[in-house]
Amino acid sequence: MRNMPIVSVFGSNGDVEPEVEALSEGLGKLILDLGCRLCCGGRGGVMEAVCRGAKQSENWSGGEIIGILPEADDRNANPHLDIVLPTGLGFSRNMLVAHAGDACIAISGGAGTLSEIAFAWQIGKPIAVMSSTGGWAAELAGRHLDRRRAEPIVELVDLDAARAWLTGILGL
Amino acid sequence: MRNMPIVSVFGSNGDVEPEVEALSEGLGKLILDLGCRLCCGGRGGVMEAVCRGAKQSENWSGGEIIGILPEADDRNANPHLDIVLPTGLGFSRNMLVAHAGDACIAISGGAGTLSEIAFAWQIGKPIAVMSSTGGWAAELAGRHLDRRRAEPIVELVDLDAARAWLTGILGL
Amino acid sequence: MRNMPIVSVFGSNGDVEPEVEALSEGLGKLILDLGCRLCCGGRGGVMEAVCRGAKQSENWSGGEIIGILPEADDRNANPHLDIVLPTGLGFSRNMLVAHAGDACIAISGGAGTLSEIAFAWQIGKPIAVMSSTGGWAAELAGRHLDRRRAEPIVELVDLDAARAWLTGILGL
Amino acid sequence: MRNMPIVSVFGSNGDVEPEVEALSEGLGKLILDLGCRLCCGGRGGVMEAVCRGAKQSENWSGGEIIGILPEADDRNANPHLDIVLPTGLGFSRNMLVAHAGDACIAISGGAGTLSEIAFAWQIGKPIAVMSSTGGWAAELAGRHLDRRRAEPIVELVDLDAARAWLTGILGL
Repeated sequence: MRNMPIVSVFGSNGDVEPEVEALSEGLGKLILDLGCRLCCGGRGGVMEAVCRGAKQSENWSGGEIIGILPEADDRNANPHLDIVLPTGLGFSRNMLVAHAGDACIAISGGAGTLSEIAFAWQIGKPIAVMSSTGGWAAELAGRHLDRRRAEPIVELVDLDAARAWLTGILGL
Repeated sequence: MRNMPIVSVFGSNGDVEPEVEALSEGLGKLILDLGCRLCCGGRGGVMEAVCRGAKQSENWSGGEIIGILPEADDRNANPHLDIVLPTGLGFSRNMLVAHAGDACIAISGGAGTLSEIAFAWQIGKPIAVMSSTGGWAAELAGRHLDRRRAEPIVELVDLDAARAWLTGILGL
Repeated sequence: MRNMPIVSVFGSNGDVEPEVEALSEGLGKLILDLGCRLCCGGRGGVMEAVCRGAKQSENWSGGEIIGILPEADDRNANPHLDIVLPTGLGFSRNMLVAHAGDACIAISGGAGTLSEIAFAWQIGKPIAVMSSTGGWAAELAGRHLDRRRAEPIVELVDLDAARAWLTGILGL
Repeated sequence: MRNMPIVSVFGSNGDVEPEVEALSEGLGKLILDLGCRLCCGGRGGVMEAVCRGAKQSENWSGGEIIGILPEADDRNANPHLDIVLPTGLGFSRNMLVAHAGDACIAISGGAGTLSEIAFAWQIGKPIAVMSSTGGWAAELAGRHLDRRRAEPIVELVDLDAARAWLTGILGL
């Protein structure tokens, strides 16, 4: 069971609307249901919701939920992380979340999420967005960020679309 | 003359259209004319044009043009840099260019530039865009990236606007 | 079983003497036997031996062995990693291996290992060395790197000592 | 006068003995006298003394003294820096100071300095130590950190030796 693919989820710290929270939980659960690990920035808001959902998967065994934190310690880690990675790098840890993903999915999101989407594009990661969640995820669905890549950012209209995309892109 | 402010300019490597190149050169010259240093990602394209322009300023004395490079060496440095800083961090060096600026201005730009704009917003840097240059600079002029900041990304329609904004924001 | 402690092991890429290899494997197995996860730099040599040993533990379930890689991809990952984290940061990833550990243990080692030991000391991580393995681990056993910490680097003469130290320092 | 070589100086924050302070000031002045720029970690102690000395050089024109700071702002910058580069990377900024140097010299020093020496060795930078200053500089004079490099860390017994070494290694 080594080398389960890692799916990085980008999303904001802070308050989350109920529908976005529900979808985030669903995505977290789906990622583990598909036999993948989940990586995120390890804090609250969307990140916490995705981790909470992942824990509801029957595949969760205590080692699938990875959080890469800005701080040098775990004081701001959400309570659902299995693997807590403090970095001391501040928000530059955004880049590590993008690097960690075999595939990347953004949910809603502000400037931090946008920096992760843009960076994931720059380093060539497969990237999709949950387009019903507003924020930068909605705005960038189906778009090219520049001309270096042939395929646009993939629009995922719901969890079924996320399942289909992850299954295909990761060869599950 | 210590602690001259640093203006970071975000822009892409690669081919540049003639008008964008001319404006980039003008902005580089303006930054030095105003008594500031210039920081960028140190490579070609817009970055090189801004550096080339900076060198045309009467204020250029050989220590004002800073390039923060992705590589661990200077093999991809453009020839106009005064201060060459290899990092070995890959594109994560984007974050350092944003951190270095007392003010940040984006020109045109693809995904790398977008990651710099988003990150500069996230860490609270004053940020503006040359809106006539296309790319992400044009698209984000006057926009809020999220709700954490009251003022939007400042639209600079030309070099006069850039001069006025830099003069105000840096207290020159 | 969430938040199992992480033990980071510092050691060199490249050839390993048979006795050091055996001890490395034993340490990797011990770390998992104690109910911890293992983190390392993810490459060959001592790192690979520690990971190979970890896999022999009855506690290994496919999610305990973490490698933080210098590259932006997994081309140099050793084959025993469960969780592969590419960073694109070059050797600056050394700092992340130190940050990830709730406790840190060095085996033998050259300059890279030395940078990790020194950095772990600087950021206040509990740190010990397998003193029979030569290299910087042997040289720094029982030493203070500077005056900022009261306790020296802990000398571990064998795996029993490692077991006792980890049990105490991690409250197992 | 572009591309003056950069000499990175490694040394500790905190109290400095008078003889070490005097030598640090002398080294800073020497680096600028030789037509180089100075880079350091930008804070107090040895770093501040080296910068203070650099400012005494007749070559100082206000753009030669570079500080790469751990913080995301300049609150802990020493008052002698010409070019202040906040990073937000915490002590991982140590690695950037090493990367910035065309040659690196350590003075006295604790764990942070040791991490910089070790890292500079790992990435192949020319490296020397002021051996009369105690700390890790004294201890590592003339030593190999591992077998990857043929030449040991160069011992500099005084400023004349530093002048000779820098002149040779940088082709001045």
